Order: sequence, then structure tokens, then C-alpha cells
Amino acid sequence: MPEGSFSQPVTIAIDAMSGDRGAAIVVAAALSAVQENRALSLILVGFRSELEALLRSGHPRIRIVEAADVVRMNERPSHALRHKRNSSMAVALTLVRDGEAGGCVSAGNTGALMAFGRSIIHMYPGIERPAIAKLIPSLRGHCHVLDLGANVDSSAENLYQYALMGSLMASAISDQAEPRVALLNVGEEEIKGNEQVRLASHMLAQSESLNYIGYVEGSDLFRDVADVVVCDGFVGNIALKTGEGVAGVLIELLEQAFSKGLYGRLAGWLTRPIIGRVLRLMDPSRHNGASFLGLQGVVIKSHGNANERAMLAAIRQAVREVQLDVPQRINERLDELML
Amino acid sequence: MPEGSFSQPVTIAIDAMSGDRGAAIVVAAALSAVQENRALSLILVGFRSELEALLRSGHPRIRIVEAADVVRMNERPSHALRHKRNSSMAVALTLVRDGEAGGCVSAGNTGALMAFGRSIIHMYPGIERPAIAKLIPSLRGHCHVLDLGANVDSSAENLYQYALMGSLMASAISDQAEPRVALLNVGEEEIKGNEQVRLASHMLAQSESLNYIGYVEGSDLFRDVADVVVCDGFVGNIALKTGEGVAGVLIELLEQAFSKGLYGRLAGWLTRPIIGRVLRLMDPSRHNGASFLGLQGVVIKSHGNANERAMLAAIRQAVREVQLDVPQRINERLDELML
Repeated sequence: MPEGSFSQPVTIAIDAMSGDRGAAIVVAAALSAVQENRALSLILVGFRSELEALLRSGHPRIRIVEAADVVRMNERPSHALRHKRNSSMAVALTLVRDGEAGGCVSAGNTGALMAFGRSIIHMYPGIERPAIAKLIPSLRGHCHVLDLGANVDSSAENLYQYALMGSLMASAISDQAEPRVALLNVGEEEIKGNEQVRLASHMLAQSESLNYIGYVEGSDLFRDVADVVVCDGFVGNIALKTGEGVAGVLIELLEQAFSKGLYGRLAGWLTRPIIGRVLRLMDPSRHNGASFLGLQGVVIKSHGNANERAMLAAIRQAVREVQLDVPQRINERLDELML
Repeated sequence: MPEGSFSQPVTIAIDAMSGDRGAAIVVAAALSAVQENRALSLILVGFRSELEALLRSGHPRIRIVEAADVVRMNERPSHALRHKRNSSMAVALTLVRDGEAGGCVSAGNTGALMAFGRSIIHMYPGIERPAIAKLIPSLRGHCHVLDLGANVDSSAENLYQYALMGSLMASAISDQAEPRVALLNVGEEEIKGNEQVRLASHMLAQSESLNYIGYVEGSDLFRDVADVVVCDGFVGNIALKTGEGVAGVLIELLEQAFSKGLYGRLAGWLTRPIIGRVLRLMDPSRHNGASFLGLQGVVIKSHGNANERAMLAAIRQAVREVQLDVPQRINERLDELML
């Protein structure tokens, strides 16, 4: 990450109404975010009266922009697109398009966010569909995984484009010159997988601009064998949520063990400093915030049920991508690669 | 589980040559298995001289059946089917068909095991494709998940049939009268998912013989919200391996933390009795052994790289299914359901 970049002023718009847990979580996270980062200004988009009440005395670097409507979690994206132009989600995206915010964060309906994103912010020329990308922690580093749910029926061509965008994103965010790009599959042998994946592998193997290393399996996601792992959104979403589920259950069981009886509590007290890093690594709320890759702007999708810490993590992710100028850097190189 | 069932004699055939780690692991697991279960006899299928050398003085309830060939891990199933009729895998399946063994275990090539299974043992009438099913541990119980990789392009009809078989399997193995059956999807709302999943959901909702509860997400697999979770094999395989990957990384990190310095080792020594249950719950080698559902016989697939403990777990799974007469019980009820 370039030095000194954190003094560069950044404004992020936040869709304050769309999450499962209501605006209070968002406002609390917003206040924490501006407190920890003096270069950051925030625009909270939503019902002014509700947000003003939650903000109380307010903050000089947080302002409110009114939006009269909210996209519901189970609303059809096509319905939202037609009827919810005044929603907190659409207004937040419009602030990005108009340059009033460098990027935005929403915990709302993923499909609607994608539909509004494509319609308001537009995509890179030549890219068919946006993909949701996330940096997930691994044993010794991290790995960019995409698509995590923007598209549930990706073609080989789509997978190929995700690989291009993911590689450029890894270069921009993690400062890797030639990120190792892999396809997620049910085995490492060439004969494995469905038709789309096998065809995408063939296309990637032909590409001279990508460092394509072949197939990886689900268990490899955390083993630092690839920097970018590409898959269909249906597969990626379920895989990631399964991984988060395992981590969640493990943390819950450990907490239970450390709260039972005197011995358990003593062991917990002694152990917590030792295994704190492990618990943090696996805590999904510390890794919240996925990027809509393919849009010409920074759009960060938060978990719908994000708590305050998770929402703060998503805001930080938006700040990072704006400061690193990720969309612009991808756009420039995509032009070369797709010539 | 019916009382006293464990005294009923059982014979299991083991494909001793196909795993990644060689026959020594299999022989060691076989010896442990016959020692812990006096009702169990085993047939090791493979190269007689190699197996005899590994068995040393032998065991009265372990015998060897010669097979001259081995299916390779990266061999095309169609190639194996044509050229490897004398492989340890094919011979083990033939022993099941001929009634010499009640069931069999293989750690070999999944595609070849499916191809040989369909060709040698045959399927339930009306079932289009077999599915790989596994009992995975959850917070308070467990959950049957299928398909885990037999088919990478399941149609809605396939998913519907997996649901039928999975429900009957849960009834037979876990003694549940009306197992809760769910489809794995990227969200719980009706509009989510790809076409196959949405259509399968419609079919399942019509069925009166199934207790269909709708969609669940990856994170729900461990939260006891369903007894049977149905998905395409590509999705299921990647989800499960991702979950195992997370658990593996967590266990590795905990072990590291507990081996560093005096304080770490002390904390580990104090903590191990407390979190032992957690570590065991997440240890993939304790949950090895997936069932080929749809075949008229017990065929258990072990992880290719199973260690001795994992292979032992797979043998136990085969014994359990034979003693509970799972294929027969599924077959009887399928007949009713598919009338």
C-alpha cells in the first residue's frame, strides 16, 4: 500500500437503511470510522429524521442525504430498478456516479445492488457481468475470491473475465506483480469439473497476460496456493458461507468451553492471549466487505446482518479501494488486456 | 440404532490399492477395525504379495482377494470401465454384488467408483444418477448432505431424486421419522438461486411424502436447521472441502499456538481437555466415509488421502450401513414414493 495514502481525503456514501439490523448499527459504525480516520468523511443516505435522531449531536465529517425509500431484502431486483429510484441504495450509488462520494457501502439486497450498480455507475467496456470479490484470510496471507454471488450461471467467458478482473484487482490492492490465478474445481486433474470450468481453463491457459496456475479445490482457499480464485457465484457464495459457518461454530464451541466452570474459565483466561490471533483470523465480522468488480466505481457489499464491527470493516474496505484508485487501475489495464 | 445389531456378523471388502497413501494405511486400518469389532470380517482386495507382506502374521478375520490392476486417480472413468475390470476397485464391487461382502470401501478415483458401481452393482429402478452423501457434524447433531461430487451438472429432477434418497437415508441411519429436507441455495428468499434449484424447490414443495422446508445457506449446514441438505455435486464438493479447509487451518493454527514457548505449551496442556471436543468435532479424519446413494449395495467412498484413522472411520461407516440394511430400506420405500 503506497505510503501516506491515508492522509488523502476520502468521502464514502453509506446506504444506511438496507441492512437486516437497521440504521443504528450503521450510524455507530460510521461514528467509529470517522473517529479512527481523520481523512474520512461520510454521507449517510436514508430517512433524515431517523438518522438525525441516531446521530444525536452529529459529527462535522458526517452528513445526511435524504432518501425516501428502501429496497427490501427479498424484493426482486427488476422491481427495485423500476420502483425504487429514490431508495437509499440508488441514491448512494448516484452520489458515487456524480463524484460526491469516492465509493459507497450497502448491506442491502445483493441483486438490487448489482442491478442499480450496472444502471447508475456503468461497467467497464467489454465486461459482460460484474462479480463480487472478497479478500479472504489464509494461513500466511490472503486470497481474492470471485464471484461470490453476483451471478448464478456463469459461462466460461464470464469466468475468464472474472479471472482478468481478479488478477488486476490483486495487483492493485495487494501490490502483486503477477498474481497466481486459479479456477475453483472439484479436483486438480484436467478431466474434473463441469463444462464451463473446463472451457474457462482452456481459455485461461492460452492467455499470456495472466499467471494461470490451473485448478484448486475448496480446501486450497486457505493454503496460499493461489492469489486469485475464480468460480461461479452460486458456488462461491455457498463455499464462502460454509467456511464462515464452520468458523462460526468453532468459535461458538470454544467460547462455550471457556465459559463452563472454574477450570474452563481459567483455561480461557490463560489461553485467550495465545489463540486470540486464531479467533480473529476466523471472525467473519473482521472480514466483511466485498467488492463489486466490473463497475467503474467503488461499491462495497456488506453482509446483510453485519454488526457494528463488520460494518466498520466494510467502510474500511471502501476507503482502501478509493485511496488505491482500484477501479481506475483495473480499467486502464483491462483496456490493454482486452485489445 | 437397533440394540444388539453389532453382534450381527458383517463382511466388508476393501479396495486396498487405490488411495493416495498406499496399501500400508489400509492394512493398518483393517487390523484396527477387526480388533475393535469382533463381528467384522474384512476382505482386502489388491496385490496379494504386497498385502501379505504388510499383514505379516495375518488375522483370522482378514483375507486377501487378488486383483491384478489398479485404477489411477487421474484416469478417465470411461477408460477404467473398459480396461480395468481386474482392478482392486472393480473386484471389491463384484464381491458386494455376489454377496461375498455386505459392502465395500474405496479411497480411489470417485468417477471410476461411480462408473463401476453403476455397472457392477446397479441402481434403484427409476433413479437416474447416484449421489454421494455424507453425515456431517453440526452444533448439536448432524446433517446428511448430498450430492458431494458424483454429478457436476444436476438437473432439477436429479436434485429431487437426491432429496428422496437423502430423506430415506436419514430415516434409516438416524432413525428420524420425518427428516427435514432442504435445498442448498445462495439465499433463503424464493427468488434466489439458479433455475435448477428453483425448479427442484417447486417439485419438492408439491411432494406430500417429504418434509421439505425450503432453502438453506452454506452457513446453515452446521446449525441443525435441516436433517438433509441437497445440492449439485460440484457445489457440494467445493462447499464441504472449503469447510474442511477452514477447520484444518484452525486446528493447525491452534496447534502452532500451543507449541510455541513455555506459556503456549502450558496453556495447551491446560486447555486440551476443555477444547478436545471442539477439535475432534472439526477433525475431518473422524468423519471420513461418504455413501454412494442410489446403488443397490453399500459402497463407501473414502477421501483419497485418508490416513489410518480416516480409513478406519470409513470402514465403520460401511459396517453401520450394512448392519442397518440401508440400501434395502431405501429401495423398499423408494418403490412406494415413486409409484
